[in-house]
Amino acid sequence: MNGSDADKRAVVLLSGGLDSTTVLAIAKSAGYELFALSVDYGQRNRTEIECAAATARHWQVREHKRISIDLRTFGGSSLTSDAPVEKSRPESAIGASIPNTYVPARNTLLLAYALAWAEVIRAGHIFIGVNAVDTSGYPDCRPEFIAAFSTLANLATKMTTELRQRIVIHAPLQQMSKAEIIRTGTRLGVDYALTSSCYDPLPGGSPCGCCDACLLRQRGFEQADLTDPLDYPARES
Amino acid sequence: MNGSDADKRAVVLLSGGLDSTTVLAIAKSAGYELFALSVDYGQRNRTEIECAAATARHWQVREHKRISIDLRTFGGSSLTSDAPVEKSRPESAIGASIPNTYVPARNTLLLAYALAWAEVIRAGHIFIGVNAVDTSGYPDCRPEFIAAFSTLANLATKMTTELRQRIVIHAPLQQMSKAEIIRTGTRLGVDYALTSSCYDPLPGGSPCGCCDACLLRQRGFEQADLTDPLDYPARES
Repeated sequence: MNGSDADKRAVVLLSGGLDSTTVLAIAKSAGYELFALSVDYGQRNRTEIECAAATARHWQVREHKRISIDLRTFGGSSLTSDAPVEKSRPESAIGASIPNTYVPARNTLLLAYALAWAEVIRAGHIFIGVNAVDTSGYPDCRPEFIAAFSTLANLATKMTTELRQRIVIHAPLQQMSKAEIIRTGTRLGVDYALTSSCYDPLPGGSPCGCCDACLLRQRGFEQADLTDPLDYPARES
Repeated sequence: MNGSDADKRAVVLLSGGLDSTTVLAIAKSAGYELFALSVDYGQRNRTEIECAAATARHWQVREHKRISIDLRTFGGSSLTSDAPVEKSRPESAIGASIPNTYVPARNTLLLAYALAWAEVIRAGHIFIGVNAVDTSGYPDCRPEFIAAFSTLANLATKMTTELRQRIVIHAPLQQMSKAEIIRTGTRLGVDYALTSSCYDPLPGGSPCGCCDACLLRQRGFEQADLTDPLDYPARES
């Protein structure tokens, strides 16, 4: 394979959530040949995994790989354990400190897997949907984390050393508000009915409506003047 | 937990090979409380995994965790596929280029898992047995790779950011020859009969005697003036 093929291939980390689905659409619109990677790390939200498969079909990715890793072995997060997810936190609290939904070293692991696959298929690009604005304050969503991983990736592999092919880590949502993300995706044709954001869905898969992820999503659609196609449970008044 | 406990805890990546077993002994002798992590990534050498368990018992680690990850999903290495391992390469070839036993992004993944566990148990130290001297030329064994991972780790986690606890990546074998590694381990009481280095063992688990790993190991024992306790098949003359 020559450099120009590698320049077109991109591994896209696709959780099935709002952000990563928008990233897939952005990578598609930029003309990349898409290799979607979904990592099942034992999260509570099982609907996300189904959404990822539907989205991969919708956008006709070249290949969609789904791998399972067991972060429950280590524990340390309410997303991968039986500890309760924090609910109905005031907006001022979201972003003020790292909540218990933080999964230890999650994005380091996800990017490491993406790097492994990128090297095997000689893809010069990795896309990840991290965001530093409307975030819950996760350390591994910050620009300096992405920059450090980029440095690492370009030292870590046979592709980037002996074969002298650069790998670029793209985080196109980095500086967008949730509303901007939703507007961008909508313009590119994303069907947000095929996405799931909730940290702790109700039995049946509906979003709970009151975890940080649901609150940020709902506020994003409001601020974008668009309607979230998902059904939320009626709020108690 | 306070800082001083974290200062004593170390996650040690333990494959069951000669290098990582020596690293475990080095960490033990330095007074760390040991948490051994063995990652089964589908490698051909199944004996290694048993050696890791025996070594963890021998050194009375606080906890030995074994996790399975499926790098066969991605392929790209003779260690995790059915492609033949290169054998009987002349010493001049070993180190001249990256051989097909290279596993894409392997050390990035291993360190990412170690980081996840370190964060959960609040360990301030990770030990890995990479070596830049008597190596087969893997990019993710070089000092600049370890330095880049150290930078990443200290940006990546809640422990290293919000809780302001540094994490140190130790690679004590980095600048040692194989002979020095063997001498160091022998002095510390390592039983090298409990280690396995071969990339492609014979049925029954005996080392093949002619892959890069066997050749480097045999030369190391020779140069250290010590006897390798493993049985190698008789060489054809």
